[in-house]
Amino acid sequence: MTMTSTTTPATPVVPASGRLRPLGLADVRITDGFWARRQEVNGSATLDHIERRLTSEGWIANFDRAAAGTLPEGRRGREFSDSEVYKYLEALAWEIGRTDDAALEARFRAIVGTVARAQEDDGYLNTRFGRPGQKPRWSDLEWGHELYCLGHLFQAAVARHRTRPNADDGLIGIARRAADLVCRVFGDGGIESICGHAEIEVGLAELARSTGESRYLEQARLFVERHGTRTLADIEYGRSYFQDDVSVREATVLRGHAVRANYLAAGAADVAVDSGDASLLDALRLQWTNTIARRTYITGGQGSHHQDEAFGDDWELPPDRAYSETCASIGSVMFAWRLLLADGDARYADLIERTLYNVVATSPSDDGRAFYYANTLHQRVPGIPADPDETSPRASSSLRAPWFEVSCCPPNVARTLASLAAYVATVDEQGVQLHQFTSAAVRTSLADGRRVAFDVATDYPAEGLVRVTIKDDTPGEWTLSLRVPEWAEGARVHVTSAGGTAVQDAAPGWFGLSRRFRAGDVIELDLPMSPRVTWPDPHIDAVRGCVAIERGPEVLALESTDLAPLGVHDVGRVTIDAEAPLDESDGIVSARLRVQVTQSASWPYGPADRVAEGDSILIPLIPYHSWANRGPSTMRVWIPTS
Amino acid sequence: MTMTSTTTPATPVVPASGRLRPLGLADVRITDGFWARRQEVNGSATLDHIERRLTSEGWIANFDRAAAGTLPEGRRGREFSDSEVYKYLEALAWEIGRTDDAALEARFRAIVGTVARAQEDDGYLNTRFGRPGQKPRWSDLEWGHELYCLGHLFQAAVARHRTRPNADDGLIGIARRAADLVCRVFGDGGIESICGHAEIEVGLAELARSTGESRYLEQARLFVERHGTRTLADIEYGRSYFQDDVSVREATVLRGHAVRANYLAAGAADVAVDSGDASLLDALRLQWTNTIARRTYITGGQGSHHQDEAFGDDWELPPDRAYSETCASIGSVMFAWRLLLADGDARYADLIERTLYNVVATSPSDDGRAFYYANTLHQRVPGIPADPDETSPRASSSLRAPWFEVSCCPPNVARTLASLAAYVATVDEQGVQLHQFTSAAVRTSLADGRRVAFDVATDYPAEGLVRVTIKDDTPGEWTLSLRVPEWAEGARVHVTSAGGTAVQDAAPGWFGLSRRFRAGDVIELDLPMSPRVTWPDPHIDAVRGCVAIERGPEVLALESTDLAPLGVHDVGRVTIDAEAPLDESDGIVSARLRVQVTQSASWPYGPADRVAEGDSILIPLIPYHSWANRGPSTMRVWIPTS
Repeated sequence: MTMTSTTTPATPVVPASGRLRPLGLADVRITDGFWARRQEVNGSATLDHIERRLTSEGWIANFDRAAAGTLPEGRRGREFSDSEVYKYLEALAWEIGRTDDAALEARFRAIVGTVARAQEDDGYLNTRFGRPGQKPRWSDLEWGHELYCLGHLFQAAVARHRTRPNADDGLIGIARRAADLVCRVFGDGGIESICGHAEIEVGLAELARSTGESRYLEQARLFVERHGTRTLADIEYGRSYFQDDVSVREATVLRGHAVRANYLAAGAADVAVDSGDASLLDALRLQWTNTIARRTYITGGQGSHHQDEAFGDDWELPPDRAYSETCASIGSVMFAWRLLLADGDARYADLIERTLYNVVATSPSDDGRAFYYANTLHQRVPGIPADPDETSPRASSSLRAPWFEVSCCPPNVARTLASLAAYVATVDEQGVQLHQFTSAAVRTSLADGRRVAFDVATDYPAEGLVRVTIKDDTPGEWTLSLRVPEWAEGARVHVTSAGGTAVQDAAPGWFGLSRRFRAGDVIELDLPMSPRVTWPDPHIDAVRGCVAIERGPEVLALESTDLAPLGVHDVGRVTIDAEAPLDESDGIVSARLRVQVTQSASWPYGPADRVAEGDSILIPLIPYHSWANRGPSTMRVWIPTS
Repeated sequence: MTMTSTTTPATPVVPASGRLRPLGLADVRITDGFWARRQEVNGSATLDHIERRLTSEGWIANFDRAAAGTLPEGRRGREFSDSEVYKYLEALAWEIGRTDDAALEARFRAIVGTVARAQEDDGYLNTRFGRPGQKPRWSDLEWGHELYCLGHLFQAAVARHRTRPNADDGLIGIARRAADLVCRVFGDGGIESICGHAEIEVGLAELARSTGESRYLEQARLFVERHGTRTLADIEYGRSYFQDDVSVREATVLRGHAVRANYLAAGAADVAVDSGDASLLDALRLQWTNTIARRTYITGGQGSHHQDEAFGDDWELPPDRAYSETCASIGSVMFAWRLLLADGDARYADLIERTLYNVVATSPSDDGRAFYYANTLHQRVPGIPADPDETSPRASSSLRAPWFEVSCCPPNVARTLASLAAYVATVDEQGVQLHQFTSAAVRTSLADGRRVAFDVATDYPAEGLVRVTIKDDTPGEWTLSLRVPEWAEGARVHVTSAGGTAVQDAAPGWFGLSRRFRAGDVIELDLPMSPRVTWPDPHIDAVRGCVAIERGPEVLALESTDLAPLGVHDVGRVTIDAEAPLDESDGIVSARLRVQVTQSASWPYGPADRVAEGDSILIPLIPYHSWANRGPSTMRVWIPTS
């Protein structure tokens, strides 16, 4: 395939340069399948659930109190609670763009009105700071999250602008007034510091694209460049926690708080692309490469520390203490997406796929009303079901809970699911790139203006067949590029047109098909979906001697619910025969497992490793994302070998 | 050996029942060797270091401000800073008992005077609560630490009473007045709750023994019984954090914050023994047994969570995220010591030995002026040397630091080292039990009043020979019981007297020698000190496929400083040939190690475990407790096998 740089943005929300151009919800619609079902639950249950909680927790009412001038009395929630309202607005904006739902539109406008009334005359907007009886504005940059909240406001405004560019709700105006204030206060000669939680960078950069206002991009650049200059105070977790230890340009790997690190990287990528800063983009590529090679769980999850929600050192990836925060994965998708647009390299889309299926899809329960904040890869004791009326402290991390005192994850999942169609495909001057496999309708224009239309039909990931049916006779030749995932050795493509059927092998990476397509042409990508045994790099000490089972993009897990045939109730007592063939029947993957009998000892360290094992039998595995939907259980992704 | 219950305390500080009777510093003196050197550094450097820091941090001055009535203005330190002053007083009391140092005596009296002036008329003593502008007394039992601080005050008073029973410094009176207040406020019908950090229980129980005041024991019992009744608020970490989830009587394992858990268990053991509560003692034995079997590091360290400083689930013992707080190990020694006195079982002394050599001895640097707060078993990146003038946040856990914002560990180490002679031996009616091996002079009385005197000479743990020389012709037969550690298969005892020399095998457990000893008799315990390869229970996932090397009571470690012959600089790149014999020459243990060459991959999970290894060569190991004394390094206790 040919990837050429598009230097002139076709719409305001497109990066100023980069190989691929993103598409909007008007261009791509997810029509059926794995993600359509999750979008349906998100729209019909999760959004309502979130608004009820934002209301019952008083986080929306904080804005009413601000407008009424009664704060700080009665303010509820943590210092960043405003941001959850903004993320909810962003989710609503995407969902309205997806479904054109009038009831959601009304809700959206009501909350925007509430937010508008809370904005002060000079543009300042935050319910926690600046009033008599509150800390002064910008007085706690380390922990105050004022700029972080605004970053989410800006992303909400951009989402609205991308889906309803001419809406008269006023959100973009609120965002502009706040952004103008940020530029005045934090520009050159102002407060030359940063926010302890990155997010303002990506928000400003996106807002610059939506509005064409270059000052916002310049301010985003200033924030990016100030990281590592140690303008924030040192803290217990060290300045790496908020990426103020080393400059973005000099860092070689993501470190510190995993959400902060990914949000900053995403914003820095926007700045690098839109300002043509090749060396900054090189630095970010290196950070991504090293982070994926050494600091990422097999699920795509990132962050191994509970204490500071942070990346560990290289290879420090304990499955039982995996923090793997849902929001960190969403940030990782944001970062990888930006590098994908810039470079067009399929490995970024591979990581996005892995992360979506194995973290983002894992977080919400089947009913869309409970969420994992952290996503452990090894549950040693059965979790206790969450009370649906309770608000859980963050640490209940092995439990899907309806809401958290720090509740960043539920609205973050909601905005990601609602906007998922935007990650499916891109265009360039030569054609269309299909990154994610889902039944979808694609109706878009190439960079040169030619209209292209095709449908995608697939049961992926249950099945590996992805069928693209061309719907229009687009004039001239164009290129349909299909991503072949790294794990898909042996993939094949069948092309059926009036001239007959041709078959080609498709190696991992991009498979590009350049021709003059006709309506009715069918292109089938056939991905091999046999389950596979995956070994860890031996540097990852915590999973030495274990294997994971994967199938397609899904990481599988062993849940204690399925252990009855072995006569045990705990995943800690079984091993896998990694040499035995895996079984797959009726869509269920099974592995040969044995019960391990260890001598019970009063002291667990001794002269020999005396273990007996029983006979192996086939035990079913489940996709990791579906675990803990059948009652309390223990679970492990990495299974010890015999 | 015969162990009989002594139901009448011979001195006020002795438990009311139990198989063994503890000895005071007047009875046992450590004269030379491993621990004598550490006691010398503790007395000559650490105590002075601590007082300088308590002064420069303002934590002693808080008491002056309390006396002057100027608080809360100028108060410094966290809510529990008073306790560090009390632990320092306790360390001083023991050190004065050990050395009779006049300068220390003057310091001790000066600080006691400062504390005395801060005590209020009704006995209340805390610099953080109760004054105008401060929170009311007892208003924050979850986090306020008021009773915790008093528990340490009581332990300091008891240490003084044990070493200078007739001193006129007034400390015991301060403690009694405060304890009387606690009984009035927290007795039946008062505030029926507990302190969020256990310690008051053990403090009150010890004070009851020292003063003969049974009300204090009763109050300690009330606090123990109230744990698990959920009188404290729920918190992010759950009520298990402060052991308010399950009653002490019903719990089956230690859980939650590891220092809190051990302090509570120690206090509960005191209550059980002194009130003859057999079922409570049974529950504690079970908790100890399960905790040692499933939740303890090979070093004896406890607590795998950084976030809540807590025990993990069974088998959750990651070496690279080992928290293994120094104070938790000191609490574990306190708990095991009480069970040892109650039951006389050598396995409790085994655990004490393991913990002393591998955690308590690891914490302080060679110069006694820097300390590990946490004791990792795997250091992946070289630590940065601590600034000797800085106060470190707690999280710098892979770094020995001179002081911490939460600085519980340095004075805890100091009081433990200064009082170490009290853990060496015990008596019963039949004889003397030698628990810990160190050159020492033992001059004591059996429970029946007969005087016994012997010296111990040993280079343990460098050498395995422990020579006991009888110094007195004690009338009648008595029993010298020598602990043979669990690891010491093949130990032998040589007895040399006027009648010649006899040799006997000594199996792990107790070796008892009952006879009429004469001055000049020599009993030599010869412990096999060959290094040994130790495998972990396969349930401990985090160290699967790894071995540790031990020698005598010492856990050894591989430090990157010693890797130069292999041409690498990182312990993460080597494996051990666990089948090859270990080498020991000139007192240095070496193992055959290889460099592991793994394919560098952009994604660390794949179809096969492709690893190449170089030739193995002998590389020296060091005792774990001596690591990080040769500059920044990486280190691991558990070494992957080839």
